[in-house]
Amino acid sequence: MEPYVLYYWPTIQGRGEFVRLALEEAGLPYVDIGREKEGMPPLMASIDHSHPGTPSFAPPVLKAGDLLIGQVANILLFLGERHGLAPRSEAGRLWCNQLQLTIADIVSEAHDTHHPISTNLYYEDQKREAKKRSRDFTGERIPKFLGYFEQVLQNNPARGGYIVGARISYVDLSLFQLVEGLRYAFPKAMAQQEANWPGLIALRDKVAARPNIAAYLASERRIPFNEDGIFRHYPELEA
Amino acid sequence: MEPYVLYYWPTIQGRGEFVRLALEEAGLPYVDIGREKEGMPPLMASIDHSHPGTPSFAPPVLKAGDLLIGQVANILLFLGERHGLAPRSEAGRLWCNQLQLTIADIVSEAHDTHHPISTNLYYEDQKREAKKRSRDFTGERIPKFLGYFEQVLQNNPARGGYIVGARISYVDLSLFQLVEGLRYAFPKAMAQQEANWPGLIALRDKVAARPNIAAYLASERRIPFNEDGIFRHYPELEA
Repeated sequence: MEPYVLYYWPTIQGRGEFVRLALEEAGLPYVDIGREKEGMPPLMASIDHSHPGTPSFAPPVLKAGDLLIGQVANILLFLGERHGLAPRSEAGRLWCNQLQLTIADIVSEAHDTHHPISTNLYYEDQKREAKKRSRDFTGERIPKFLGYFEQVLQNNPARGGYIVGARISYVDLSLFQLVEGLRYAFPKAMAQQEANWPGLIALRDKVAARPNIAAYLASERRIPFNEDGIFRHYPELEA
Repeated sequence: MEPYVLYYWPTIQGRGEFVRLALEEAGLPYVDIGREKEGMPPLMASIDHSHPGTPSFAPPVLKAGDLLIGQVANILLFLGERHGLAPRSEAGRLWCNQLQLTIADIVSEAHDTHHPISTNLYYEDQKREAKKRSRDFTGERIPKFLGYFEQVLQNNPARGGYIVGARISYVDLSLFQLVEGLRYAFPKAMAQQEANWPGLIALRDKVAARPNIAAYLASERRIPFNEDGIFRHYPELEA
């Protein structure tokens, strides 16, 4: 099989990281094209809307043979079905997709904590609003979303520690990334609240210990969190 | 077949409207349970996270036999495949889902124009920030998103006026709703910019003229836009 090609920004985890984790867990060969020499022109072409075909509004984009697939949840739907990272049943696939879309919602809200007014302005130009939005996010939204995932985990009749059925799915990988990102961005809020989600934290540890994920996290392929990504650590937002 | 049951707030179009339009276009019998007598308890139960099964984080939720499906794009993925509102090919289904997720992104941003700081505060308590965010939304985001959909439409080799292939899909229905919602919320910005998207406006008209959609829009089942939904008209946000 031709290796997959991931089109994503080369210096951040960002939304691309949810795709990278799935590719790594499944042990799939892929080219992270933005990080290659001369990688930027093909990355820009993948989101050039004037191209015919299926141009994406924004990265990440995954090239799979002739398919060019955009939107994280859509890419994971595709990879999950093809590589055993989701149940085979229709009900199981829909449930994974539903949970992934709920993760997408909180990720989007996490982004808006540092950009509540406009993605076209610098953080520094919307810091006042960012403080207000972050207070709401850490006080109301994190507990609501993570409490939801904790309940779903606790209610999974398979009891193996994963969120859907008895086996790992791409949703588990994304929940790992969500916890990691929130810990990086809002360490105080997470330290205060984590005891409320024992299942979710155990899931995070279980994913981190998977051989392919552990190897990935220790490699140079894992870009460290930084203040250009979605999860940003601005201490003043937790003051 | 047992009729579908839609669980959604009874007084707004909101995100539920994207599902209602698909059910109406396909001529499917459904119960809009929130609008029935005694409809609120089952609606609340559908998003009660402590229930086992597949509880949703938020409505809309669609009950289809034993399946309880949440998240708009996920519900449409299901309905599209089952009722001919999406292509049969894997490539076509992924492309519809990708476009729908991009619509979900702008819908979410439209919501945040009146709630940029918190969904837990009244609009009146974040009006200053709402003005800033709306200026960015109408000046930067609407043209970027709608320009994208226009290009995709223009590049569809089928040239029948729909966005994917030669037949109507749930994405067309959602684009209709997006244009309607933006016209309601930001009439000045839309009047100024609509000439830039002739294909999209023609698509809107084409959808509105479809017999099942025209009958629905003229019925009492179509709830008028109002200031409790996602698309809200606050004239001061365009001042």
